[in-house]
This record gives sequence, structure tokens and C-alpha cells, in this order.
Amino acid sequence: MSVEPKHTVLRSATKEVVLGSDKPFVIIGERINPTGRRIFQEQLRAGDLSAIERDVAAQVAAGANVLDINMGVPLTDEAELLVKAIQLVQTLTDLPICIDSSVVEALEAGLAAYQGRALVNSITAEDERMEQVLPLVKKYDAAVIALPNDADEIPMEADKRIQLTEKIVRVATQEYGIAIEDIVIDPLVMPIGADPGVGRSALETAQRIHERWGLNMTCGASNVSFGMPGRHAINASWLPMAMTVGMTSAIMDARTPQIVEAVRAADVLLGNDEWGMSWISAHRANLAKQKAQAEVAAGAAS
Amino acid sequence: MSVEPKHTVLRSATKEVVLGSDKPFVIIGERINPTGRRIFQEQLRAGDLSAIERDVAAQVAAGANVLDINMGVPLTDEAELLVKAIQLVQTLTDLPICIDSSVVEALEAGLAAYQGRALVNSITAEDERMEQVLPLVKKYDAAVIALPNDADEIPMEADKRIQLTEKIVRVATQEYGIAIEDIVIDPLVMPIGADPGVGRSALETAQRIHERWGLNMTCGASNVSFGMPGRHAINASWLPMAMTVGMTSAIMDARTPQIVEAVRAADVLLGNDEWGMSWISAHRANLAKQKAQAEVAAGAAS
Repeated sequence: MSVEPKHTVLRSATKEVVLGSDKPFVIIGERINPTGRRIFQEQLRAGDLSAIERDVAAQVAAGANVLDINMGVPLTDEAELLVKAIQLVQTLTDLPICIDSSVVEALEAGLAAYQGRALVNSITAEDERMEQVLPLVKKYDAAVIALPNDADEIPMEADKRIQLTEKIVRVATQEYGIAIEDIVIDPLVMPIGADPGVGRSALETAQRIHERWGLNMTCGASNVSFGMPGRHAINASWLPMAMTVGMTSAIMDARTPQIVEAVRAADVLLGNDEWGMSWISAHRANLAKQKAQAEVAAGAAS
Repeated sequence: MSVEPKHTVLRSATKEVVLGSDKPFVIIGERINPTGRRIFQEQLRAGDLSAIERDVAAQVAAGANVLDINMGVPLTDEAELLVKAIQLVQTLTDLPICIDSSVVEALEAGLAAYQGRALVNSITAEDERMEQVLPLVKKYDAAVIALPNDADEIPMEADKRIQLTEKIVRVATQEYGIAIEDIVIDPLVMPIGADPGVGRSALETAQRIHERWGLNMTCGASNVSFGMPGRHAINASWLPMAMTVGMTSAIMDARTPQIVEAVRAADVLLGNDEWGMSWISAHRANLAKQKAQAEVAAGAAS
């Protein structure tokens, strides 16, 4: 039904993570991001990066595979802050990093500081953004997330998104010499509360990209449920649905067990966690943890 | 991408339920079934049908849309028991019924007793079973669940399942005059613990059936997780995945909130619960219930 799956290789100094539709889903932890976190913004402005230590620990413990780092704090030197954060995170974990910025200078400084093969977040199909960012992706041998929208609009029709994906693939590979497997498409998942058609539109886009190019894909896992009650449950259904049509990673809150569990169950169901070995190990570890907690509680009570 | 969705209409004396890939998912409650329920078997053998009242109430409260009734108790007159159970259930609820038996005489007696338009569970692609059951489906204007396996084997390859689906569609429509929209295919979901390929095989089969015929489909929701730990979580990922490729109903334990919630979230995401109206109502009702319970608890404590 599809072309061979493409493999996007990300690396830290010592660890490799591979995206592919025949591989376990890659959870990109979204937490290291000051957007909407007022106290974290103030800390970063004062040069206090200690919250990052907690964010790394929590995401690693919860099962993240890659960590997104965004240091977009108004009125700071974003490039300098991003370099410090990347250096700090690389002392705390061996998970590969997704370097997330709208500022080209920050992306370049981050890529220069990073030890490994990063994922760059992100480009669109806009000529100017591609001209600015793709040379950096090539120079630093990174992979890149690409959104099939341009300056005019976020297109709702799958046809238009496929056309813009075609443009991105052509420009990145032919004009900048980037390997096709290093392009990770975000098929644009909009809030379902704003338009009941956005789920099917994103699923159709993803399926066509999967069948035509076998490209890896990612999405912001929680966008789809924006404004709705019961968001965790909606997100936990969404990712397995998207995985069915080729989604291979998501930028998400790794600290929500319901969503991580949904993704790992879908890995089993797609045959990407063979014989459920990881699933069963996680289940056993969880039982052992519960038993230990019960024993501690019983000891405290006696 | 697909042909127009087919609509399978089921009815009780007073209520209609429609299966379709543009409709909310149909939860067929599996609970009224003595298989593996020793006490229930003994009660039924003694003519005590009171457990059915509890099973109906629990499934209706949990949000089932159709109720499956199986009365396969060894050493009883299954036809007589099935008629009694159907008559009882029809006094308790207006949900349509799925009449479930391997015994042809029981199916006929059940269909004759039922007030409405039933779903018959089930036929295979075996000639003898089709010859026995399809005339009853036609005579009583019912719909029928069909499994694309024959006497030789349960085929693992999607190609073979599609061939057997072709045979079922041809025989049922051309030889017995059954409307194509009254055929509901079970694409055969086997336990993932026995073979890591069965999930993809079932998904591919479902997608091809959906794209070629637009037929409704159903499955035993819990088969896929047989033998694995964390079964509810696996089932809760499975149904949204299957819905993405055209599954429109499942025979399942409606009393497991995690799985019902996963299905209703997928309805929202596929645009089949427009603007999330049902989702939001259910969420509000749940909050109101929790608030009432908290008030009762506070009253009892004061």
C-alpha cells in the first residue's frame, strides 16, 4: 500500500533515536518551553535554569524519547539562552534534542552548540523561511520539521497541503541537498472544536504523505482538543488514529500517562513493539512499583 | 478516497439505530452471554432470567447502542431460552438487538419473536452456513454479521479475506436478494500476543473493505488484547485505530468507561459527533453526577 518507510536518525552525543513507521512512536517532550509559564519566564530572564532540571527528569521518567527545547522569552537574548539550555540538558540526559525557535540566529547558535544530530523545529513552505533555515539544517547535518502552509493561509484541504509538501520536498532535496528522510512533515492538526472536519482533513493528509513518500510525520498532540472538555481522552484517541495512517512522532506532554499509554498500546497493535516486549516490561515495572508503594504504606501504618 | 458510506438500519419496536462511517460508532453490548459465566449458566438452566435485568440496566447506563443476546447454554433448549430472553429484553429497553447463536433453529425462533429489525450474529463464507442463515435474514428483513473465513482456515492475509468478503457479498446479494448495506463485515481481529502482524492485517482488511464497498464493519473489541496485560488500554487504542479505517461498530463490554470514552472521542475526531455536542453533554452530565455525589458525601459527613 505504501512506499518503504523512511528513517530519520536523531542523535545525542551517545544515543540514537530513529523515527519510522516500522519503529516505536517517538514522543518528543514539549515541556521545556516558557510559553504560558510566567514563573519559568521570570526565572529564565534572571538566568535561573533550575526548572529545566526538573522538566528533564520528569519527562525522562515518563518515557520521552526526544526533548524539545524552546527558549522564546521576550526581552532576552534567545540565542544565548538556547545555547545554555541545550548545554545544560546535554549534561542531564542522553536523549536527542529538538531545537525549537522562530529566530534564525537562535537556531544557528543552538545547532552549533549541540553535540549530536538535532531535529529543527520548524520551517513552513514559505520561501523566506526555507532560505533562512534549510542551509543551517544542511550545514549542521540535522533533520527538520516542515509545516505545509505558506504565508497566505493554513490550507484546510488535503490537496493543498500535499502540494505544499511537494514544494518543501523539492526545495529541500534539490536546492539544499537535504536527504528526503530528514524531512519530517507536520500535516497541520487544527482544533476539532473550531471545525468538525479538521480531524479527517489531517488524517487524509497524513495518509497520502505516508503512502506517497513514506516520510516521517509529527504533530502537536494537544492542538486537536483545544477548547474541548476531556482533552486527555481526546488526545489519547487522536494519536493512535494518526499512527494508523503514518504519524511517527508527536510533540506532546510526556507527563500525561493516559496519552503515553495510548501511544505505547498502538505500538503493540501496529507490530512496532514486537510481541509486546516493551509493553509487558512497562506493565511489570508498574506492578513492582505499586507493590513497593503498598509495602511502604503498610510499614508506615504498622 | 472511498465509495459512499452504506447505512445499516437496526430497529426495536420504537427505536432506530443506524450504522455508517459518517455516524457515531455503534457499541454492541456483549454482556448478555453465558459463555464463561458459570452462575449465569446455572440460573438460565433453572429458568431464572433475573441476571439479564441487571445486564440490560448496566449496559444501557454505560451507553450501549445495541444489545447482543446469546443464550448458548449446554443442555438447554437454546431456541426457547433465546425467545424468552429477547422478549424480556424488549420489555426492559428500546435498544435494538443483535441475535447471537451458532444454532440455526435458535436464530429463526429469535428472529420470529423479535419486534423490530435485528442484527444476526453471524455467518462465515462457508456455503453451508450461508445456505442456512441467509434465507432467515431475508425472510425476517434483518441485517447480518459476516466473517470472511471458510471451513479451511482463518486467513491471515488481507488478500484472502477480501476474496472471501467478495464471495459473501456476491452470494448474499445475488443469491438471496439481501441488500448490500445489510451485510456487516467482521474483518477478523486476532490476538496481537500470538502474532505481531495481526493488527496491521486487520487494519488493512478493514481499510480495503471501507474503500471498495463502504460496508459497515464490526469486531469483537477485546480479542486483539487476549493474553496481554493492560487489556483495557490496548482495546482503548485499538478501536479508534480501527475507526480510522472504517470500523463502525464493535461487540464489546460497554461497562468499561475507558473504552467507551475512547470510542466517543474518536467520534468527535472523525466529525461524527458534530461540534462535540454529545461529548460535551456527557462531560457535563459526569461533572453534575460527581458534584451530586460530593454533596451527598458532605451531607453524610456533617
